[in-house]
Amino acid sequence: MGFTDSARGSSTAGQTVAEVTEGAVLSRIFPRLPASDAALVGPGDDSAVMAAPDARFVVTTDMMVHGPDFRRAWSTPWHLGWKAAATNLSDVAAMGARPTGLVVALAVPDSTPVDELEEFADGLKAACEALAPGCGVVGGDLSVSGTFTIAVTAFGDLEGRAPVLRTGARTGDVVAVSGQLGRASHGLALLFSEGVDEAGVPDASRANSVREQHPDLVSAQLTPTPPIADGPRGARAGATAMMDISDGLALDASRMARASGVTLALESLLLGDDVDAALHGGEDHGLLACFPPGAELPGGFTRIGMVSEAGGADVTCDGAPVAARGWDPYTAWDGAAG
Amino acid sequence: MGFTDSARGSSTAGQTVAEVTEGAVLSRIFPRLPASDAALVGPGDDSAVMAAPDARFVVTTDMMVHGPDFRRAWSTPWHLGWKAAATNLSDVAAMGARPTGLVVALAVPDSTPVDELEEFADGLKAACEALAPGCGVVGGDLSVSGTFTIAVTAFGDLEGRAPVLRTGARTGDVVAVSGQLGRASHGLALLFSEGVDEAGVPDASRANSVREQHPDLVSAQLTPTPPIADGPRGARAGATAMMDISDGLALDASRMARASGVTLALESLLLGDDVDAALHGGEDHGLLACFPPGAELPGGFTRIGMVSEAGGADVTCDGAPVAARGWDPYTAWDGAAG
Repeated sequence: MGFTDSARGSSTAGQTVAEVTEGAVLSRIFPRLPASDAALVGPGDDSAVMAAPDARFVVTTDMMVHGPDFRRAWSTPWHLGWKAAATNLSDVAAMGARPTGLVVALAVPDSTPVDELEEFADGLKAACEALAPGCGVVGGDLSVSGTFTIAVTAFGDLEGRAPVLRTGARTGDVVAVSGQLGRASHGLALLFSEGVDEAGVPDASRANSVREQHPDLVSAQLTPTPPIADGPRGARAGATAMMDISDGLALDASRMARASGVTLALESLLLGDDVDAALHGGEDHGLLACFPPGAELPGGFTRIGMVSEAGGADVTCDGAPVAARGWDPYTAWDGAAG
Repeated sequence: MGFTDSARGSSTAGQTVAEVTEGAVLSRIFPRLPASDAALVGPGDDSAVMAAPDARFVVTTDMMVHGPDFRRAWSTPWHLGWKAAATNLSDVAAMGARPTGLVVALAVPDSTPVDELEEFADGLKAACEALAPGCGVVGGDLSVSGTFTIAVTAFGDLEGRAPVLRTGARTGDVVAVSGQLGRASHGLALLFSEGVDEAGVPDASRANSVREQHPDLVSAQLTPTPPIADGPRGARAGATAMMDISDGLALDASRMARASGVTLALESLLLGDDVDAALHGGEDHGLLACFPPGAELPGGFTRIGMVSEAGGADVTCDGAPVAARGWDPYTAWDGAAG
C-alpha cells in the first residue's frame, strides 16, 4: 500500500507531483481524508485493519478513467473525488450494507498540481460525510500515469442481515426505485452539446455556463448523490432483490430479471416525464429493488411496476418488451480529449 | 462493480476488447479466475460478500501503471497478473494475516486482444494458487484506457492474532528477513542494460535472451515469489514488527525504525554478496521482521542484525549510518515507451 510515507518536504504550494516526493504529497493529502469509524488500523502500515462486527464484509471495486469515464474540462478534482466515492458507496448500499471504508488508488500525470490532489481528497471526504457518515478512507496508493485514473474499493457492514442479491425477485413483488431516473444522462447530453467548443472538445468555461443554467442535471452527472441510506433501509424492509442502477434502468432491470428468472413489468406512468431517459440513461446510481406484495416501501423508494412470471422479455413497459439497451462503457464514451 | 455481466457473444477468438461486448470479455475471464474459500457471495452482484471469521479483516491496495511500473515488452499479461497478485498478497502477509481474496480493476487499451486478458487472469490464478492457496478473486472492474493500468485490492484474515505493525520493534530484538534481497533490482538492471534495442527502448526478444541467461534474477523482477506463508508464521512466532520490503531494505527499514522509535543495526556479513543491492534495490517483496531476543526464527527468516536504541541514524550497517535511499516511484522509472 502506498499511503505509507512521512513528510520529506513541507513547502509544496503550487508544485506538481513531479516536483515533490511521494512523502510530501501524502503529508498534504492525509489530514484531509475522512476517517473511518470502523478502522482498527488506518493508513500508514502495509495494510489497514477494519472491524467486521458480524464476521462478514461486503466489497466492491470500480475504476474511473480519464476519457471513457470523465473529462477534466468538466470535472474538477473535487467532483472526481466525490463521484469516485459516491458510485462505490452505491454498490455497497445495493447489497443492503452500510458503507464503512474505502481504499483509493490514484494515478495522475506528473504535471498534476499537488493542490488538485488535496481537492480530490476534499471531494472524497465531502461525499463520505454527506452520503455515508462514519465511512472513511483507510488506505490507498499514489502513482504517476499518462492517464488520470482512479480506482476505489469500498467495504460495508451487513449489520447481521442477509445480503440482498439480484437473484431474489419473485412473481408478485413490487418493483421500486430510489433516486431519480434519467437525470445524469440528461446532464451528460447537455455537456456534450453545450459544454464543448466549436471543434466539439470539452471546454471548462462552457461547461460552467451549462452548470449555471441546469445545476440539478449537471450535478446528477458530475456529483451524483445516490440514496445510500436507502440500501440498509430497503434490506430492513424486506427487499427480495436490490441493485445499483448504473447502466440504465432497462439494462440493469434485465440483469435482475435474468438473475431472478422473472420478468420486471414496468409502468410508463410511474417513470416520470421522460420515459426513454428513465429507461436507457446511464449513471443514475439509484437503487432498483423488489419488495414482497403489500410491503410498505421505505425511505425514498417509489413503485415503478411489478414482478411477473418469466415471459418472452426480461423487462416490459406497459406490457411491451423493453430492449436491454443502456450504458456500454466499451462504446458509449471513448477518447481522452478534454 | 463491473464483473457483473453475462455473455452476449461467444466466438471472440483473436478479437480485441474494442470488438466485443464487456459481457463477452467477462464470460471468457470469469472461468479462469481463482476462487476464494472465504467468498460467501462471489463475483456477479454489486458487491462480493466475504467471511471475516474473527470480526476483522486486513485490506491493502496497489496500482501498477504501464511505464512507471512495468513494460509490456518485458512483461507478458501472465507476468502482470502474477505480479499484481503477488505484491498485494505480500502486503497482507506483512500484517501477519492469511490472504483470503482480491478484487481486481483493470484498464486496457481497446486494441488489447481478449486473449491477453485471459492470460492475465491465468497469471492471477497461478500466483494465488502458488503463494496463497484458498485466496481468490471475488470481484473486479474492466475499463478501457490509453494506459494499461492494474489496481488490485487484497484482503486477509488475522486468524485471531493481533496485526503485526511497523511500530512494535524494541531494543534488543533480532532483525530478520524472509526472501531474497537485491535480486529484483539486479534483474531490472539487466533488463535495462540488455533487454533494450539500440535506442534504449525495451525489446521483447532481447528481454527473452536476458531471461534465458539469468532466469532467477529476471523472475525476481517480473514474477516475484514473496514468502507469503512466512507472514502468519512470523506472527505466530511472536514478531514484534513486520513489513513488506518493497522500496529497498534501507528505506523500508528506516520507516520501521522511525515508526518504532529505534535504530535497526544491520550486519553486512548477513546481507549476502552484494550489500549495496541488498540495501538499496527495490521490489524485493520479502518480509522484514523483528523478533524478541532468543526467539526461534520461523520459516525462511534469517537474522540480519538487531534493534538498538534510537541513535543518530534510523538504520546502520556495521555501525555506520545507512542512507534511506531506495525505490522512489516518482522518479525511479518513468516514461511509457515499451
